[in-house]
Amino acid sequence: MIFGTRAVIEAIRSGREIEKIYVQTGLTNDLIKEMITAAKERKVPYTFTPQQKLNHLSSKNHQGVICVLAEISYSSVDDLVHSVFANGRDPFFLILDRITDVRNFGAIARTAECGGLDGIIIPDKGNAPISADAVKTSSGALNHLPVARTEELKKTFSQLKESGIRIIACTEKASKSIFDEILTGPLALVVGSEEDGITPELLRMADAQVMIPMKGKVGSLNVSVSAGVAIYEAIRQRMFKV
Amino acid sequence: MIFGTRAVIEAIRSGREIEKIYVQTGLTNDLIKEMITAAKERKVPYTFTPQQKLNHLSSKNHQGVICVLAEISYSSVDDLVHSVFANGRDPFFLILDRITDVRNFGAIARTAECGGLDGIIIPDKGNAPISADAVKTSSGALNHLPVARTEELKKTFSQLKESGIRIIACTEKASKSIFDEILTGPLALVVGSEEDGITPELLRMADAQVMIPMKGKVGSLNVSVSAGVAIYEAIRQRMFKV
Repeated sequence: MIFGTRAVIEAIRSGREIEKIYVQTGLTNDLIKEMITAAKERKVPYTFTPQQKLNHLSSKNHQGVICVLAEISYSSVDDLVHSVFANGRDPFFLILDRITDVRNFGAIARTAECGGLDGIIIPDKGNAPISADAVKTSSGALNHLPVARTEELKKTFSQLKESGIRIIACTEKASKSIFDEILTGPLALVVGSEEDGITPELLRMADAQVMIPMKGKVGSLNVSVSAGVAIYEAIRQRMFKV
Repeated sequence: MIFGTRAVIEAIRSGREIEKIYVQTGLTNDLIKEMITAAKERKVPYTFTPQQKLNHLSSKNHQGVICVLAEISYSSVDDLVHSVFANGRDPFFLILDRITDVRNFGAIARTAECGGLDGIIIPDKGNAPISADAVKTSSGALNHLPVARTEELKKTFSQLKESGIRIIACTEKASKSIFDEILTGPLALVVGSEEDGITPELLRMADAQVMIPMKGKVGSLNVSVSAGVAIYEAIRQRMFKV
């Protein structure tokens, strides 16, 4: 962690990988404004937070600004897409729309790495932070798997679609079974939050919506299990070119 | 929970569903012997435990014997098998060889219930207890899904095989991909402990060993994810009769 506005501005400008900057609610002065501008330019996530939460993050003299350094190196969506196409392969990405539980997030990253996916894409806000805990529950997968952060998943969806990547949303609300969908070719699977699934606007933007068929009374899988089932159905199809 | 030897003997004899009986190490008297005999007759799991652990389980005056009542109704393997065949269906069971983490266990039970499996089979010892926590992390699936407990998985394997049920072990050590195995017909899938997988002796007894194909550096999935992938590959094949 880095504390204090000047030190954080320095960290942003020197290009250090930053997980998130927490700024005390109500703090406004020229230095803070300068920091926010620098963060925006470099696309570093920041959030305004009550003093109490800052004190909870660190007992040190933080002067109202705490910068949490990133545990991993992030990619941009552009870099991800270009590097895969440049290698002559069909991209296979996983998009996580606000997975908040660190154990679910870790297990999903582990599955994506084991499945040989080309990367995962997460939003700046609303996802479990990539903390040391997240890296640990991923069994270290987050150290090997490319991860791209994006300010807005909506823009990312458009960008992927323009690159010829099909976006397939996994949702209990779909009527089509994932086993009836073609998952070969350039592909991005989407899974959504434990609470409320995929954002409706993103659902509408997807090229197809598919569900995992279910019987029984519970009617929903743990999100890391459903991501695993969807990823491996795609892998199976891509192995056998079904 | 029920405390004291006489009360526990009463609970055993009256046929109450018991999760496990904890007996203080070194305690021996005629009443304890009577209780152990009753437990053996009714196949109620019991274990000898240091006083310290008993005190940790309950601060009440337990007199060296604590009986934890079951959160669910257990079936026997026999009952499970007979009821499925009697309904004219091909059984589809999941056998858990010592899944110790309650969240993994809950997620697996949830997947089994959502997948419409005919039941899960767990050993008396070494599995996460079916506590209120386990029922909660299963999203209530453990209230709907038949669960059979067995003293010895080895005997259960023989019993299932005699009933014409194929036992397929999921293990990273296998050379055959699960996608190349036929998973239709009477089936029991086996997944093993987070620590060391399936017991070697059980592996040898299985009709086939299969692995989930992996790339990358981590080389192993979370057990609830691999159970999910295996279960749904079987469901896919059984839907399409592949």
